[in-house]
Amino acid sequence: MQAFKSIEWREGKVRILDQRMLPHHTRYSEYSDWREVERAIQEMEIRGAPAIGIAAAFGVVLAAREIANEGSIMEAREELYRVASNLGKARPTAVNLSWAMTRMKQVIAGFVGGQVTDFATTILNEALAIYTEDIANNKALVAHGARLLPNEANVVHHCNTGALACADYGTALGVIRWAHEQGKKIHAFLDETRPRLQGASLSAWELQQQGVPHTVIVDSASGHLMRSTRIDACLVGCDRVAANGDTANKIGTYNLAIVARAHGVPFFVACPLSTIDLSRPTGAGIKIEERAASEITHIGAYQITPDETAVFNPAFDVTPAEYISAFITEVGVLYPPFQDSLLQAKNRSNQSYDSSSAQ
Amino acid sequence: MQAFKSIEWREGKVRILDQRMLPHHTRYSEYSDWREVERAIQEMEIRGAPAIGIAAAFGVVLAAREIANEGSIMEAREELYRVASNLGKARPTAVNLSWAMTRMKQVIAGFVGGQVTDFATTILNEALAIYTEDIANNKALVAHGARLLPNEANVVHHCNTGALACADYGTALGVIRWAHEQGKKIHAFLDETRPRLQGASLSAWELQQQGVPHTVIVDSASGHLMRSTRIDACLVGCDRVAANGDTANKIGTYNLAIVARAHGVPFFVACPLSTIDLSRPTGAGIKIEERAASEITHIGAYQITPDETAVFNPAFDVTPAEYISAFITEVGVLYPPFQDSLLQAKNRSNQSYDSSSAQ
Repeated sequence: MQAFKSIEWREGKVRILDQRMLPHHTRYSEYSDWREVERAIQEMEIRGAPAIGIAAAFGVVLAAREIANEGSIMEAREELYRVASNLGKARPTAVNLSWAMTRMKQVIAGFVGGQVTDFATTILNEALAIYTEDIANNKALVAHGARLLPNEANVVHHCNTGALACADYGTALGVIRWAHEQGKKIHAFLDETRPRLQGASLSAWELQQQGVPHTVIVDSASGHLMRSTRIDACLVGCDRVAANGDTANKIGTYNLAIVARAHGVPFFVACPLSTIDLSRPTGAGIKIEERAASEITHIGAYQITPDETAVFNPAFDVTPAEYISAFITEVGVLYPPFQDSLLQAKNRSNQSYDSSSAQ
Repeated sequence: MQAFKSIEWREGKVRILDQRMLPHHTRYSEYSDWREVERAIQEMEIRGAPAIGIAAAFGVVLAAREIANEGSIMEAREELYRVASNLGKARPTAVNLSWAMTRMKQVIAGFVGGQVTDFATTILNEALAIYTEDIANNKALVAHGARLLPNEANVVHHCNTGALACADYGTALGVIRWAHEQGKKIHAFLDETRPRLQGASLSAWELQQQGVPHTVIVDSASGHLMRSTRIDACLVGCDRVAANGDTANKIGTYNLAIVARAHGVPFFVACPLSTIDLSRPTGAGIKIEERAASEITHIGAYQITPDETAVFNPAFDVTPAEYISAFITEVGVLYPPFQDSLLQAKNRSNQSYDSSSAQ
């Protein structure tokens, strides 16, 4: 555990660390209205595929409390279904958001008796389960991942995939942290990750807090780095993984994967099973969010481009499966052929989830 | 010709467009001391391989005028040699700077009779020759380059290689402009080019002034762009080309070349012959300038990273020759094997330079 928490349920409110203020200010917001949570996700006050799924789950809890004193169970169910659907559309690319909303909808549909207030409690318990499972899964994931790294390792990391992107610990950045805590001599080269600079601001801030040695580079310097320094691995997270292993992740992941391949550097994707979307056969159909031009034309209040310059600002890209050496999940490391290994891991996990639910 | 001039000799002074102020302010500086020109090159008030060679040549002229009323020819020669050596070291990677200083030193060494004031005039004439040859060479180069592009072309461009980087017209960006002026339907996707953002600020500004359609992308989005949009070519400039074709250019050029190769997109380097350095057999020995951390940690006054974050900030990288489809020069397009084609073009040009000097 570390000093900061990206998201927490605290005294009936959702408490969110405002990541837009980092690394300059550590400011928390507390929300008691699900619409504020929806806005916080859209405006990237909270970001990271697992974290926004958790935030949306707590958003449904807030909505359940709002309506706890009014109307019937039937009406509450309809209203919460609508809220969960809205929250599920706050951002389009990461699957964790819709995965979390599907879980919440199952609980909503499954509540057939009792008071509306019990309904709200049941919904809170499911959201807390998503939250605590995320932490447990991340801890399992990072232990599997750290075993892939040699005792002295230089790694390149893209975007932010640490404790800020999850309930705690994180995925790809968590692997780096865990390897460091296990006594391995790790140096992380952090892609700054334009346009929103999550690497330069968030990942550098996290690793500084955790005492993990690191160096920030511009995204386009990874090739020069790999030619001039021994790099042992690239580690990235993911927002949605198709059944064949094609992986949507932060824009720039695909370029890094191509550059890694050209230098024979292993390319690992840290991937909680909740991020695998077996309903997509390949990455071709994954919707890529395009965000505001101002993310490119301005940094802070500083304008970079001439007025009215046109920009193309896709927030994500899709890395074809053939560029990926392995997926690191909470149930182990998955190797090609991914069509098989992803399916098996996902099925195994569904069985264990079903059996634990039945108890 | 366009409204702005990156550099000019005007009424006994060097007039430089301060590129650090673009795209917000069009501010010119006038210098009458060579030490100010040296500083302007170091601080990238003027940048671009050809432009800094020209600026340094005018710097030698300023020094010659400073000493025109003192001492002997012998003393003047020694002093100007020293100045040319200093100016040649203002930045390390681009060969044009040392190439221009070698030309100036030949004139200094060749002046054996006459008054010190005639000496200054001879030196001015050589600097003006470098300046006018740059414009003539660029015009020839862009005509050769534009023929490589289809009538409807989407191209990706890195950094700034336009009129701002040269005396006029430019090289890779000049090819795009010329193709547009010839009636081709060209769309330029401009890498923003972190850390100094020459693409987003300078290239977008130039193309806006010239009415050439363009879109700015973050450097790491080129792979996603090539998967989602038909891209016909990448066009970049260069700072130093080794005898085998290995090419030093702005950081990020190498990543773009790797990504272009992965998508089967031709990768063209616009390369005035003055940029070819036959004294380097390969790119291995090219010194790569590392610049201040603040170029990465800050944009304008805005700080991106936590305090004291370590960064790695190489200003250039080396793209191996095998990633380059062709070099576009003022004497034509050079294809592999580059070992032969670069040597032949360079020799041909030296002969014609020698014969024109002899007239």
